[in-house]
Amino acid sequence: MKLTVIGVGPGDPELLTVKAVKAIEKADVILVPVKKAGSTDSTALKISRSYIVDMSKVNYLHFPMINLEENKEIFDKAFKANADKVKAITKEGKNVVFLTLGDSMVYSTFSYISGYFDNISYIPGIPSFVHGACATGVPLAIGTSSFCIINMTDNEEHLEEAFKLHDRIVVMKISANPEKLRQLIDKYKKQAVIFTNLGSEGEVITDSLDYLQGKLPYFTTGIVYPCK
Amino acid sequence: MKLTVIGVGPGDPELLTVKAVKAIEKADVILVPVKKAGSTDSTALKISRSYIVDMSKVNYLHFPMINLEENKEIFDKAFKANADKVKAITKEGKNVVFLTLGDSMVYSTFSYISGYFDNISYIPGIPSFVHGACATGVPLAIGTSSFCIINMTDNEEHLEEAFKLHDRIVVMKISANPEKLRQLIDKYKKQAVIFTNLGSEGEVITDSLDYLQGKLPYFTTGIVYPCK
Repeated sequence: MKLTVIGVGPGDPELLTVKAVKAIEKADVILVPVKKAGSTDSTALKISRSYIVDMSKVNYLHFPMINLEENKEIFDKAFKANADKVKAITKEGKNVVFLTLGDSMVYSTFSYISGYFDNISYIPGIPSFVHGACATGVPLAIGTSSFCIINMTDNEEHLEEAFKLHDRIVVMKISANPEKLRQLIDKYKKQAVIFTNLGSEGEVITDSLDYLQGKLPYFTTGIVYPCK
Repeated sequence: MKLTVIGVGPGDPELLTVKAVKAIEKADVILVPVKKAGSTDSTALKISRSYIVDMSKVNYLHFPMINLEENKEIFDKAFKANADKVKAITKEGKNVVFLTLGDSMVYSTFSYISGYFDNISYIPGIPSFVHGACATGVPLAIGTSSFCIINMTDNEEHLEEAFKLHDRIVVMKISANPEKLRQLIDKYKKQAVIFTNLGSEGEVITDSLDYLQGKLPYFTTGIVYPCK
């Protein structure tokens, strides 16, 4: 059996690696995650669509998008079912690939079922925050400085510690707590570039902290960095 | 003028993005950094070599590999000279690309001269630590946890704070202070996977902390993560 997990990058089909494209082209079965049972709407699939010649190779795996901590039983059941499905296919000796947004090691859907398999290869993808840095020209790390990646779903004390410790901070899931992010940027005298739906419909790129007032779209990320 | 800075990824020519390959193929001038004046030995060039048809397009820029803090004047002079050289070429209306290892936003040589230019596009590359995570199967981030990237050249107090705060830590430039890294892993009851020259000659991948005794090669990186 062979299972290859492929990071398809942040959205632009040209941001897949050459290796990823080749692996998709020669796959027998292409697994993609969907948020709703029975759905065929997959962002990872859309990104890779132009590299898939035969759509009958595509199989959809349902990963419920609900709070993991509060719904552990539902998750465990769904994950086990997905893992069993993947195992059954790989047992047939087929060349199976699983497509995941960004990179498979950075907040990936696949990490929830990776423990069920012994033999996986991973092909890296461009994480969304690397794309965001390149699109805005704001470096993530210079010289020998540290940087970190935080989620605004994290507890506020932990978020504050990250601001204390690091010069540069990638902030994911800003929509969970934009007001707190604004407070931290002000308190620690930083500046930020914030981006929503980068490279796709409804793209916003801004350095105005006013953007952090009110409700924000889900795919909103930022890079916080020192003022000059 | 148009200047495009391209991240060529961690080493495998197939880990360039499709976009990076296309940009290299249509470039009029290809700039690559070298560590010694007059040298033509460039890792970024080696990685991209198979995509360059006409080697007469390649121009070498010397970036001295010495301590920046202690040699600021030498650096400023070298950086200014490189920036002037790049500016002169882009002024001719040519399509110029600059190749950089990994990604141009993560500890990149180019960030030292980016301030000299008004109009730069960046094409993202796979950072070495993302490659390391994929090669070893150790995730950088799961769920909503944070992670950070530190350098062992950093001061020990700051390194310790990073261990206190984050579950998962990418450790760069381990060769600068392997003994301290071992102490921190022990003290905070973590485990680690450590890799040297990943994907090339002299590759080492190990989870043995004994590897942290004695002198280590320059390209040694690790991922520290919680014990089960």
